[in-house]
Amino acid sequence: MPFRAPIGEFRFLFDHVIGFDGIAASDRFAEASPDTVDAILVEIGRLAQDVWAPLQRSGDLDPARMENGAVRCSKGFAEGFRALADGGWLGLSAPEAHGGMDLPVTLTSAMNDMLSAACLSLGLNPLLTQGQVEALAHHASDDIRAMYLPRLISGEWTGTMNLTEPQAGSDVGALRSRAEPLEDGTYAVSGQKIYISWGDHDFGGNVCHLVLARLPEAPAGTRGISLFLVPKYLPNEDGSLGAANSLRVVSLEHKTGLHGSPTAVMEYDRATGWLVGAPHKGMAAMFTMMNNARLGVGIQGIGAAEGAYQQALAFAQERTQGRTVLEGKPGATGAIADHADVRRMLATMRADIFTARAIALSCAAAIDMAEATGEAAWSARAAFLTPIAKAFGTETGMRVSETGVQVHGGMGFIEETGASQFYRDVRVTAIYEGTNGIQSMDLVGRKLADGGEAAFALIDEMQALAEAGRGDFDALAEPLWQGVETLREATEWMVSQDDVNRRFAGSMPYLMGFARVFGGFAHLKAAMAEGGNGPRSRLAAFYIARLLPEHVGLLSHAVVGDADLYALSLEDLGA
Amino acid sequence: MPFRAPIGEFRFLFDHVIGFDGIAASDRFAEASPDTVDAILVEIGRLAQDVWAPLQRSGDLDPARMENGAVRCSKGFAEGFRALADGGWLGLSAPEAHGGMDLPVTLTSAMNDMLSAACLSLGLNPLLTQGQVEALAHHASDDIRAMYLPRLISGEWTGTMNLTEPQAGSDVGALRSRAEPLEDGTYAVSGQKIYISWGDHDFGGNVCHLVLARLPEAPAGTRGISLFLVPKYLPNEDGSLGAANSLRVVSLEHKTGLHGSPTAVMEYDRATGWLVGAPHKGMAAMFTMMNNARLGVGIQGIGAAEGAYQQALAFAQERTQGRTVLEGKPGATGAIADHADVRRMLATMRADIFTARAIALSCAAAIDMAEATGEAAWSARAAFLTPIAKAFGTETGMRVSETGVQVHGGMGFIEETGASQFYRDVRVTAIYEGTNGIQSMDLVGRKLADGGEAAFALIDEMQALAEAGRGDFDALAEPLWQGVETLREATEWMVSQDDVNRRFAGSMPYLMGFARVFGGFAHLKAAMAEGGNGPRSRLAAFYIARLLPEHVGLLSHAVVGDADLYALSLEDLGA
Repeated sequence: MPFRAPIGEFRFLFDHVIGFDGIAASDRFAEASPDTVDAILVEIGRLAQDVWAPLQRSGDLDPARMENGAVRCSKGFAEGFRALADGGWLGLSAPEAHGGMDLPVTLTSAMNDMLSAACLSLGLNPLLTQGQVEALAHHASDDIRAMYLPRLISGEWTGTMNLTEPQAGSDVGALRSRAEPLEDGTYAVSGQKIYISWGDHDFGGNVCHLVLARLPEAPAGTRGISLFLVPKYLPNEDGSLGAANSLRVVSLEHKTGLHGSPTAVMEYDRATGWLVGAPHKGMAAMFTMMNNARLGVGIQGIGAAEGAYQQALAFAQERTQGRTVLEGKPGATGAIADHADVRRMLATMRADIFTARAIALSCAAAIDMAEATGEAAWSARAAFLTPIAKAFGTETGMRVSETGVQVHGGMGFIEETGASQFYRDVRVTAIYEGTNGIQSMDLVGRKLADGGEAAFALIDEMQALAEAGRGDFDALAEPLWQGVETLREATEWMVSQDDVNRRFAGSMPYLMGFARVFGGFAHLKAAMAEGGNGPRSRLAAFYIARLLPEHVGLLSHAVVGDADLYALSLEDLGA
Repeated sequence: MPFRAPIGEFRFLFDHVIGFDGIAASDRFAEASPDTVDAILVEIGRLAQDVWAPLQRSGDLDPARMENGAVRCSKGFAEGFRALADGGWLGLSAPEAHGGMDLPVTLTSAMNDMLSAACLSLGLNPLLTQGQVEALAHHASDDIRAMYLPRLISGEWTGTMNLTEPQAGSDVGALRSRAEPLEDGTYAVSGQKIYISWGDHDFGGNVCHLVLARLPEAPAGTRGISLFLVPKYLPNEDGSLGAANSLRVVSLEHKTGLHGSPTAVMEYDRATGWLVGAPHKGMAAMFTMMNNARLGVGIQGIGAAEGAYQQALAFAQERTQGRTVLEGKPGATGAIADHADVRRMLATMRADIFTARAIALSCAAAIDMAEATGEAAWSARAAFLTPIAKAFGTETGMRVSETGVQVHGGMGFIEETGASQFYRDVRVTAIYEGTNGIQSMDLVGRKLADGGEAAFALIDEMQALAEAGRGDFDALAEPLWQGVETLREATEWMVSQDDVNRRFAGSMPYLMGFARVFGGFAHLKAAMAEGGNGPRSRLAAFYIARLLPEHVGLLSHAVVGDADLYALSLEDLGA
């Protein structure tokens, strides 16, 4: 099924839901005029459709593999990456000073969405490279920036993140990799890292690893971690590739999906590295990259959902099975899409993709507004929405791709159909860059630590819209108002818990409940922009009647506390 | 992770939740004494643990394949099947007259649960054979029964179901396979069938296909379908294998999971067949097999969930990551199971497995009570619970195996870990034997067609328990009472809709909402049996506080009607 870039959806969200006009009106993003934005979306959409989408299945059937110690990528991936780089798109939001376009992160987010829908496994590479650009731009020395940024932005070189070690996953502080300072100002970095996405490839150029390691006598835990840039090849002064560094890919993992993306075990044996940021402050620098990447991974989930949805929708309009209620009526296709339960599945997919996208793009827009205005409230909003965008985006990826398989019936389980590749590929997005559970703990812990200012600002905004919608949009606005009220109460409960573990006991349902209510807000906004008459208004009616009510179960689950969890002993659970 | 057969859980459900005592007290099942049942559960549990569980991964890595036109099964599968057959377990509920043990279907259901947990792909084979025994016992001629039943029951031969054709999946009535009557009373069966599970194997013996096909001048649709028994080898009069029949495996499918189960495209070219049941009444005969198989597939979902849960629980007690609130307190493991969000995931898995099992075993118990008493109310209950058992069991399989991957973090996505095999394998159970959407349509269409007698009988029983629980069990009984009330209203809405399509528009959330409330009933029953103090009481508190409230969203979704679905045109959905 050919992928079709959902340009109209981005345009609508930009214009009517996430407030892109505020970004475009700022001095900082004066270049982001509607015409420019449109032209870029269309151009990238074409690339995604024509060049990347055909690679999706080849990445699955012809996985990245080791050959004589080197990583060989799936057929066509090098060319696909090159086409993206040649368009200059890797630098869409990167600093102009180093060759980037300095355009809004919101636009890059739309790009990542389309690339993820077209070929998730290849799309992970630019995501990591974008994150590295961000981290180096903020934390690296002038020399490093001058050497690396132009080459990462042009796509001549690519970037990776090296956090995880066998004993240190979600608990990054447990890592043991070491870095010894050398006389010339560089460091000898040693250790083994696992789950290194795109740890190597055959696209040419350099592979630049950002590696977390400990300096001698560093404090224990996360406060003793420093960040190092460790390139595969030591660059000469003119940027040409010099000697091979002392690092290697030990092996690639055999994964459930995302076969086109090489996941490496990396070994560093006194490899030459450069410190990025201050000693022992590696986590702060890495978090710059992580926050960017978390939003990006949420968008991966949405992209995969879009791909799965488009394929299911096309199938449902072709496959005929049984008579439907529409037979002989206007609009009948005679295909399974006319069955109520199938149409319910399709509408659910579509409505939740809209919700997840509204969240992710609102997060991206807040990042841009923070950059444009310097206002702390925008940064706080971006920080608050990031874990929701990551977790709800990827949960949506899982749910929608699962439903996509279901719409296909038996054919969904047959690999040739392609439906289940989305289902397998997207599974890891709920895990990497911080599991969704970790996201939810970040949300109710750190992101509500100030008493929930950013949360309540959003809640107020949602409630104000619900009030504005009264009258003409009562059927939508009233349930939303109630939902927001329930969300406010749950949020008040959360911030009033001094024992953070009581928050953690309901953090995941709280996150999902927040997203459910936010979805009502986004759908109402869409309906109001259409004057209540149009495809998005009909989708809003569907969402608010059928999916919004899920917030009741989620938010009552969120505020139970932790006593019942620990009353259940592990013996109980194993009995 | 070694699988441990959950014997205690079955015993508890039998004794305290599903009313097995009524079955054991009947004349019909006088053999099913507690001692006999225990001994059988333990024996089959040991087989599942020791012989079948080690085959699970080999089935995945060494898939069934075609070799020179014959199917070669995964290493060890033939021996595993033989061990089951040699125990006599294939005939656990089969007629004694033909070599079976004539024991309750409830017991066979517990067996299928354990076998599915141990090795889902191999477990599908006896499920099909059991179904074929059931169909032949009810509908075949004496000659056929005498020839086939003893051999199917002993496991010397195995059975398959042949319904699907490329154009006829959920719409069985569209099938085109033909059967021409011959002078000797047999039929020449021709056509292509797809998705034939265990369509062939290398276990030896015969493969007996039940094939739906049309007689000449048969009416169109499902009313013109007849059922034929078409064996791979034509048996001689003494039961030895004679000439090969004119049928073949064209190819095997490449599937997302269940690699150990060969899924065949079958071709029949004037193959010799025998009519089973009356001409044009094949659907009725097939439904005997289907109902049995639908319950069995629901149990497959539960078994896979059990396997996934046990592995996740073990992992969560070994893997250490970060400090938890339990540190230094009694019961602390220092492992991730002590994190609130992980324990929430584990408890959710456990609580929903309990719910799904209570539903499936209640369905099985109703089948047995119908057999023992001949009362129509029991048959109606079995018929009503069958689609819920199938769909909720398999949805639970998907949810729990997905969560099992999540508990493993990054390792969950690495195939060596085994967590994601459950996730891939179980996916098809929501599709085959009638998609879960079809189950839900059966539930609100056929199974409520009489005004909902069986539904309201169950609802009354649930409400009576909630009332009995008032006082001592208020915290559990009150939310259940409310839930049952909401379920009653939703059911009243359903039966009052003359336009069945309005029911279909909410059939899936109705089914899930029914299961959610039924879960509250089963958990309360368990807690009351324990006197409110024990592992199942603590699990009940968890379920009723956290999962039961999901019924609100589900049941409000169930009663929206279909107008909003068709207001959303396909153009809207594709915009």
